Amino acid sequence: MGVVISWDKNQPRQASIDPLVNATADGMERVNRAILAQTGSDVALIPEVARYLIDSGGKRLRPMITLATASACGYRGEGHVDLAASVEFMHTATLFHDDVVDESDTRRGKQTARLVWGNQESVLVGDFLLGKAFRMMVGVGSLVALDILSSAAATIAEGEVMQLSTARNLDTTEDEYLAVVRAKTAALFSAAAEVGPVIADAPRAERAAFRSYGANLGITFQLVDDALDYGGMAPLMGKEIGDDFREGKVTLPVLLAYGRGSQKDRAFWARNLIDGDIGDGDLERARRLMEETGSLADTIERAHHYASIAHDALAPLPETEQRAALLEVLAFCISRAH
Amino acid sequence: MGVVISWDKNQPRQASIDPLVNATADGMERVNRAILAQTGSDVALIPEVARYLIDSGGKRLRPMITLATASACGYRGEGHVDLAASVEFMHTATLFHDDVVDESDTRRGKQTARLVWGNQESVLVGDFLLGKAFRMMVGVGSLVALDILSSAAATIAEGEVMQLSTARNLDTTEDEYLAVVRAKTAALFSAAAEVGPVIADAPRAERAAFRSYGANLGITFQLVDDALDYGGMAPLMGKEIGDDFREGKVTLPVLLAYGRGSQKDRAFWARNLIDGDIGDGDLERARRLMEETGSLADTIERAHHYASIAHDALAPLPETEQRAALLEVLAFCISRAH
Repeated sequence: MGVVISWDKNQPRQASIDPLVNATADGMERVNRAILAQTGSDVALIPEVARYLIDSGGKRLRPMITLATASACGYRGEGHVDLAASVEFMHTATLFHDDVVDESDTRRGKQTARLVWGNQESVLVGDFLLGKAFRMMVGVGSLVALDILSSAAATIAEGEVMQLSTARNLDTTEDEYLAVVRAKTAALFSAAAEVGPVIADAPRAERAAFRSYGANLGITFQLVDDALDYGGMAPLMGKEIGDDFREGKVTLPVLLAYGRGSQKDRAFWARNLIDGDIGDGDLERARRLMEETGSLADTIERAHHYASIAHDALAPLPETEQRAALLEVLAFCISRAH
Repeated sequence: MGVVISWDKNQPRQASIDPLVNATADGMERVNRAILAQTGSDVALIPEVARYLIDSGGKRLRPMITLATASACGYRGEGHVDLAASVEFMHTATLFHDDVVDESDTRRGKQTARLVWGNQESVLVGDFLLGKAFRMMVGVGSLVALDILSSAAATIAEGEVMQLSTARNLDTTEDEYLAVVRAKTAALFSAAAEVGPVIADAPRAERAAFRSYGANLGITFQLVDDALDYGGMAPLMGKEIGDDFREGKVTLPVLLAYGRGSQKDRAFWARNLIDGDIGDGDLERARRLMEETGSLADTIERAHHYASIAHDALAPLPETEQRAALLEVLAFCISRAH
């Protein structure tokens, strides 16, 4: 598998997220303004946490997808901005609660909100963002979009609860793991991609195509993320990796390496991930086992499979700037792992 | 102040919640069914927690209010059942998150969900219930009701964040404390009482009357609860009391006793509630100081004030079975403290 992943043979350059950033730059300006406006509060902590969120350096992939899919379907109004901001609020609320649930100390190389302000504040500001997200959506006035996003909210939480039971269970099957990923990650990507066409009043087929794109991009994104937590295919650099390992998260590269491993290897995985008894050099050994069993490469191969489904979902749609940008995001996701 | 609190001089019997229970019995049957239907999930933990919630012995005051206000306004459809279930879900989600934030071990004399299942599960099942609540509301199809309830969700969380800063601060003013109560407790009562008239298409004045009733009932309810945590006006029984004291919650009876106390008394309050250094007999001494300063009696007097506002809000409305039941709830709330 080469480094340059592209479905377009005439486009050998490195895939990038830049076309999507450019195609949605105006809208994202307004999304940022909406986020600031919605997090104004006399309760000092709330604008402070919001600022942290704005500056957190996330890619804002989800709101960009909402803006791009709405525009791709010819939407001319302003509702997509509030829906995009809502999607980002939902995502951030999930991160805040996740960090509390996982007892995480860092995210994207920065201290998590729960370390900066505390667990209590993270739970409550997460709830606040969720409430604001729903309020913004209600303001847009589309009951169909509301149904999609509120269903996603319930599904995400359901996925997180499911994950609690797989978190320290090495007998999780790939299918079970995928069910978790579909719920906790793909559901929001799918909703983010579907509400654009919905408010643009796009035909059913177009709406289904974008929903499928979103769901499969979400799976791709999560599997690549799982691989990146062990350094992906690049030589092990040792920084910002190993969070999942230390937290005992049973992700796909682990499941594949465990299933393909020897008795001794399995004991190693169990000691580290189930018992949490991690010694010096164990992360490096985990990484080595993943290379020997091909579990990292195959996780990315699996990711590629879902990216292909997402790619084909958009194939029948009119060729717009947004469609091209969304397709390139798929290649970009995969290329991150290399 | 006598034990029998009634605004109706011809009704000297002990006030009760029974008329409201009877007036909404049919609807509450359906609310319970909706709760069970919405918490079906392949994720085993979710129905289990839902069962715990159904059996928890809460009074279900909020959903009954939604049912009663809708009926009082002549509503004939089915939407009030789903709105009532949503209100109960929102309330339960708040309790789950509150118990995590407050590190509470018991609620209504039972172990809290976070002790039975864990903090992680409580955060996530709370999120799940919130998502389901919004989905149910969306199904009812009233954008106005959605706006009211989603605003309440954001306000509740804002109130909880505010409370974090007053929680261990004895210099909180009564007004500041009231702002917290309005947000964290009264907002949901107010929304529960307003969405009934909204889906019944009631005239603006009726809607405003029920909203005012709900908000002031909420404040009454919270202040009485604060007093009950120190045993109310009844002789100190020693069971199921003192949770707020042990958690360092600065509530109105504490604020009044602190403000009216001597230098030495203030040091006592600070040691117990701010430093959390609670010794044998300190709860009894706290209670004694509240009696000496009249802070418990005056908290209930304040509660009575808000109950009167709620009572007068409903005065101009047509005399229905529901209105009578809702009025009696006010007297019932106050009488709990005696």
